Amino acid sequence: MTIGILGATGVVGQAVLDCLRDHNLPIDDIVLMASERSAGKEMETPFGPRTVQAVSADAFADLDYCFFAAGGSTAKEWAPIANEHNCVVIDKSSAFRYDDSVPLVVPEINGEAAQNVMLIASPNCTTAIAAMVVHPLYKEFGIRKMIVSTYQSASGAGQAGLEELEKGIQCAANNQDLPATAFAHPLVTNVIPRIDAMQENGYSKEEMKLVWETRKIFGDADLQISCTCVRVPTKRAHCESIVIETEQPINPESARAVLEAAPGVVVRDHPENDVYPLPQTVSGEYDVEVGRIRQNLVFGDHGLEFFVAGDQLLRGAAWNAVAILSSLLSS
Amino acid sequence: MTIGILGATGVVGQAVLDCLRDHNLPIDDIVLMASERSAGKEMETPFGPRTVQAVSADAFADLDYCFFAAGGSTAKEWAPIANEHNCVVIDKSSAFRYDDSVPLVVPEINGEAAQNVMLIASPNCTTAIAAMVVHPLYKEFGIRKMIVSTYQSASGAGQAGLEELEKGIQCAANNQDLPATAFAHPLVTNVIPRIDAMQENGYSKEEMKLVWETRKIFGDADLQISCTCVRVPTKRAHCESIVIETEQPINPESARAVLEAAPGVVVRDHPENDVYPLPQTVSGEYDVEVGRIRQNLVFGDHGLEFFVAGDQLLRGAAWNAVAILSSLLSS
Repeated sequence: MTIGILGATGVVGQAVLDCLRDHNLPIDDIVLMASERSAGKEMETPFGPRTVQAVSADAFADLDYCFFAAGGSTAKEWAPIANEHNCVVIDKSSAFRYDDSVPLVVPEINGEAAQNVMLIASPNCTTAIAAMVVHPLYKEFGIRKMIVSTYQSASGAGQAGLEELEKGIQCAANNQDLPATAFAHPLVTNVIPRIDAMQENGYSKEEMKLVWETRKIFGDADLQISCTCVRVPTKRAHCESIVIETEQPINPESARAVLEAAPGVVVRDHPENDVYPLPQTVSGEYDVEVGRIRQNLVFGDHGLEFFVAGDQLLRGAAWNAVAILSSLLSS
Repeated sequence: MTIGILGATGVVGQAVLDCLRDHNLPIDDIVLMASERSAGKEMETPFGPRTVQAVSADAFADLDYCFFAAGGSTAKEWAPIANEHNCVVIDKSSAFRYDDSVPLVVPEINGEAAQNVMLIASPNCTTAIAAMVVHPLYKEFGIRKMIVSTYQSASGAGQAGLEELEKGIQCAANNQDLPATAFAHPLVTNVIPRIDAMQENGYSKEEMKLVWETRKIFGDADLQISCTCVRVPTKRAHCESIVIETEQPINPESARAVLEAAPGVVVRDHPENDVYPLPQTVSGEYDVEVGRIRQNLVFGDHGLEFFVAGDQLLRGAAWNAVAILSSLLSS
């Protein structure tokens, strides 16, 4: 079996290679593709060194599956061409997420939706990380309401975001200001309560992605969700403070039992010993961490409050896409 | 009139001096007090240079009012002695906040409670900042439920916290790790979802302070509140993502009109132009900023969601205490 990565030189493309290195999938060969600008670059892969090719229709003819780790417009242009050449596309962009004919998949939740289709969408990072923890509770207790505030890292804005934070730290150490370009304001020692374009309802697109995508993945158009997305000066991994109101009574013990049995979830919850989810412990990890699990004081015995951290490049992007392929190959 | 500051050399004590410099109160003289360790230190005040004295019973005899900017145990020891010497105490510690016989005051909200008493408590920073924005909405629309997630700065943990963040930035710029001492984990490029001691109900004391103190200041024991308090790598100013469910219908326009008329509140709410509350714009400001005002998607026409930022050393501590004195002197 031969797979491809379109956008191999980007942050997510490279993280897909990391995932393939760490997980043994029955893959024979890999083709790396990117824009003309990056073509010719040599990259290490788990299958040996490969030269990055400029994306072309012909290249898809040799591929069984292709990860799209590029922007939405690239995905819209090339996904139909890949499909015409019988190559299944697993797309990380938002291009097809809200298309009713395209499944939006977190394999641990709705992996069956990825079967027997030519195009599969992978959710936004914030959605995928929250869903890993919230869905096991949703299945067991039912959820009416979900209120989220996020703490999202610089690399969520790509390599440019990460570099701006790292340069900003250098400048701050020398008492210099670094003008913001990747972000709307300097991010070092700041938090920025807007991510992505503003929508007419006063929410940012990043906030509405969590609303739209969680409903679609859970298959529940009535789920009431609101979200505030905030960029914070961390390098990698997103955190989320989450409150849910459940249909059935819930308590920290029953919730913890469900979460401890949930695949891809690690319970880190001894706050009295300072054990809780942290960007620094979850960075580079495939699982999502959950902790600070407690009875919510507003919704009482139908309410739970907790704190989640996940590596947005892995669980939130590359690993979710690779896990989709893994679930297809093992089914 | 002569006033004193107990704990003059600390972060809050120095911020009280800044507040007195910026606001013209009818004060004739000032006495600076601290522990034996800091006695003898020379400090600039708006009334000329003063030498810090070791705290003593006699010193209170000359004072009309004294700001207590020290810890809880110091407050418990010296407040009764100050009162015996006819000196009114305005205390920033948590020592008396939950004592039914001691008023807990944000002067814009319940200033009348500070009248004709010898001991007045000033709330925790997170409470004071949220209350400035939430109370005007509470008065106009009634509030049933309030759900808060915070983004709290390093200096909220005092001078040691601020210095650990600043040293951490220096170390990060040189690719070195700085072991955490002021915080449980390194704070640079991290967020820490626990502040203060854990309580039996799974909330931290910092989280429960917001619950207990908001109810007491608003005079509403039935107000349902929950909170997640998180330390983030900012130097100064706390931010809070807040969702409320109101008794009366509310919408962003009616809320904005109320908040624009609220004293001590600045509406910064043009997110499409990247104008919203920020730690970097509110640091050093006496007013609290609010923005990202929008209809909450979970509570519908009875729900509002917004983002607040306030300088925790000023509105959250020193300025609230000085504003209590100012309201007493002008009444």
